[in-house]
Amino acid sequence: MTTVVEPAAAASNAEASNAEASNSEALRARVEAMATTARTASRALARSTPAERTGALQAMADALEAHAPAILAANARDLEAADAGGVSGPLRDRLRLGAGAVAALAAAVREVAAQEDPLVGEEEVVVRPNGLRVARVRIPLGVVCMIYESRPNVTSDAAALCLKAGNAVILRGGSEALHSNRALAEALRAGLAASPLPVDAVQLVATPERAAVDLLLEQEGRIDLVIPRGGEGLIRAVTARSRIPVLQHYKGVCHVFVDAAADPERAAAIVVNAKVQRPGVCNAVETLLVHRAAVGRLPAIAAPLLAAGVELRGCPATVAALPGVPVRPATEADWEAEYLELVLAVRVVNDLEGALEHIARYASNHTEAIITEDPGAAAAFVAGVQSSTVLVNASTRFADGGELGLGAEIGISTSKLHAYGPMGARELTTRRFVVHGEGQVRG
Amino acid sequence: MTTVVEPAAAASNAEASNAEASNSEALRARVEAMATTARTASRALARSTPAERTGALQAMADALEAHAPAILAANARDLEAADAGGVSGPLRDRLRLGAGAVAALAAAVREVAAQEDPLVGEEEVVVRPNGLRVARVRIPLGVVCMIYESRPNVTSDAAALCLKAGNAVILRGGSEALHSNRALAEALRAGLAASPLPVDAVQLVATPERAAVDLLLEQEGRIDLVIPRGGEGLIRAVTARSRIPVLQHYKGVCHVFVDAAADPERAAAIVVNAKVQRPGVCNAVETLLVHRAAVGRLPAIAAPLLAAGVELRGCPATVAALPGVPVRPATEADWEAEYLELVLAVRVVNDLEGALEHIARYASNHTEAIITEDPGAAAAFVAGVQSSTVLVNASTRFADGGELGLGAEIGISTSKLHAYGPMGARELTTRRFVVHGEGQVRG
Repeated sequence: MTTVVEPAAAASNAEASNAEASNSEALRARVEAMATTARTASRALARSTPAERTGALQAMADALEAHAPAILAANARDLEAADAGGVSGPLRDRLRLGAGAVAALAAAVREVAAQEDPLVGEEEVVVRPNGLRVARVRIPLGVVCMIYESRPNVTSDAAALCLKAGNAVILRGGSEALHSNRALAEALRAGLAASPLPVDAVQLVATPERAAVDLLLEQEGRIDLVIPRGGEGLIRAVTARSRIPVLQHYKGVCHVFVDAAADPERAAAIVVNAKVQRPGVCNAVETLLVHRAAVGRLPAIAAPLLAAGVELRGCPATVAALPGVPVRPATEADWEAEYLELVLAVRVVNDLEGALEHIARYASNHTEAIITEDPGAAAAFVAGVQSSTVLVNASTRFADGGELGLGAEIGISTSKLHAYGPMGARELTTRRFVVHGEGQVRG
Repeated sequence: MTTVVEPAAAASNAEASNAEASNSEALRARVEAMATTARTASRALARSTPAERTGALQAMADALEAHAPAILAANARDLEAADAGGVSGPLRDRLRLGAGAVAALAAAVREVAAQEDPLVGEEEVVVRPNGLRVARVRIPLGVVCMIYESRPNVTSDAAALCLKAGNAVILRGGSEALHSNRALAEALRAGLAASPLPVDAVQLVATPERAAVDLLLEQEGRIDLVIPRGGEGLIRAVTARSRIPVLQHYKGVCHVFVDAAADPERAAAIVVNAKVQRPGVCNAVETLLVHRAAVGRLPAIAAPLLAAGVELRGCPATVAALPGVPVRPATEADWEAEYLELVLAVRVVNDLEGALEHIARYASNHTEAIITEDPGAAAAFVAGVQSSTVLVNASTRFADGGELGLGAEIGISTSKLHAYGPMGARELTTRRFVVHGEGQVRG
């Protein structure tokens, strides 16, 4: 089996369009072969034991460390290309594997190895009146395809989580991290080679050709699930083209609602944490909703935000409640925005129902929080909000697989099918029916 | 709110293409309005109590009975149109509501009302080291769109199951059942009108225009799930076009494997039941696989099949094992076929691994059974087959929501995402995270 899909060699002396067509046919054949190889590997994985999967993960972690020099050298090549291309700031930071980065990747794989196995055991066993014993039994999804951008750590994190749940994985990282991803995949496969599990449980599409993604999305029957990780544009494009189910994480327009019965200190501490602690992530708050009866608390909430450098954009009632404070008037675009930076939209609402109306209109099924000392208001908020994570008196920043106790996270789903919210290894499995009888037939 | 989407009035004196464009714009506006209305209704449903949902279902059942004359009259109109169009046989049978049919529909709705509520309670509550209390809580999916063919009973069955799980539903039945479906929807909505739940929890797209389906599939953000029920062509077309997640039930190419250690009487009884009891349904067996060591049992299995009028199509070893029996040589097409009639493909395989190879290649993720008295063989079969229902010593005909204890069934999923196998009311819900804190922020 081929380790990775390499770029097709350039045609030397054929007509250009013919060469292109033949390259495209060749690419299709290679992607299909890769998906078929993954499907075959998935059948062996489905019959593997928890100990075999754990052992393989440990071997993968060891191999990452053994391959550290090659991984860092490959990463240096990607960084050189980024520098030559003028890439800087957060984009370059995300690409970079610093000193100790490979050890951290290996540690993350070992953490996944140490997690509870998501496949063991029967659930909800019932014996039917006719004596049939019906159990629900978890099995792997089969083959997962990850399509992601820049961060090379997704390569080892996703491979580990997929393998933990007994899935084969096809990885398609961004071209900017191609050398890093190749080196990481080589290491992970070297680890698998030292285990009884198939090396092709982990495959990397190591060509920069964009057409490879479209071809992957046509492999229904061979690939069971596609998980795009990256900007909303990437996810919408993958969803529109795919014939395979796609797990979507469009965006995180998260809200904190300060209720009439909010504790003022808690409110300030939670809003500041939710906005400031890490503003560039999906579970940071984007809009603060304030109950009209709590509007007097706005100055005490605004002060630490302003001190932390947060720009406020408010409705007229917010502007009126914060005299002398620089608040830009908010527009419709502010209620829809996922800022991912130190900007916070603020709106005063008439009551809890007003907060629910705003959230129903603008939220993204990600995370909303209420700050209140009134259990009735908390219950009404939880019942009235349909987002994947709802918090009472806690920061939106806890909407995270690790923080919620799932262990490592493969992503956060903001569509309600299959999984909703942070997804761990168990969300990479499904349940089927296993029925034991003694010759029963249907009458 | 409009009850139903009626066909646009024909333009009288405008240019044809303009009229068409304006009709198409009008249809788009009506479909969008319907989806928006459903979304609004779903917000009220998400906050409804189990008692309110149960009461509404009982009122819907009562209303079906009260509307029986109108429903039967409407069904008679559909049958007249079918007769005029030359529709006969099973297609006409599926369309027909006979005497007692409406009472049966009402009884099915009452059964759903009596089922356990799928939304009540918290699951998997954990308290994190920082004191956060994390629970998984079931919520409705939101808005479900059913796209189906001929059988009018889907109209009330699907409406009842969706409402049970707190979902609004948009129903799009086939044009051949348009009058029946309209009358059924009117009755169901009359029942809802006598309850505290919104009447628009159930809406019917009552236009025969095919473009309405395409427009429905574009309503992502308003519709959460599409469930097509009908032939494979319908399901593939819906999946290819939809931007909304689709639950797929492509086909049921089900297998029975008679192991070396099969009890001969059980084997015969189960194979005959799986093929003959109701050959036109998805969980009927299509291919019989026989362990080479059990080939001597083939005559005893074939005899009752032939007596029941089953046509056999076999591999060369099958033909050889059944001298004097009319067995047509099987071709590749037979291994792929979902016959849905009294035809059975038969193949002798070298061993259990051979059966697994055949199933991996030809099965449709639906249902497979092994007949064996050897627990090791049973376990190996269960582990090696990834279909949504796997049975040991029981007929494939048990792969059914009612038979497996789910109560009524909204469909059977043969793709692994969200639900796999028979789906009841619970499969029309999702789980989100509800977190209670005491001011926790992330460090």
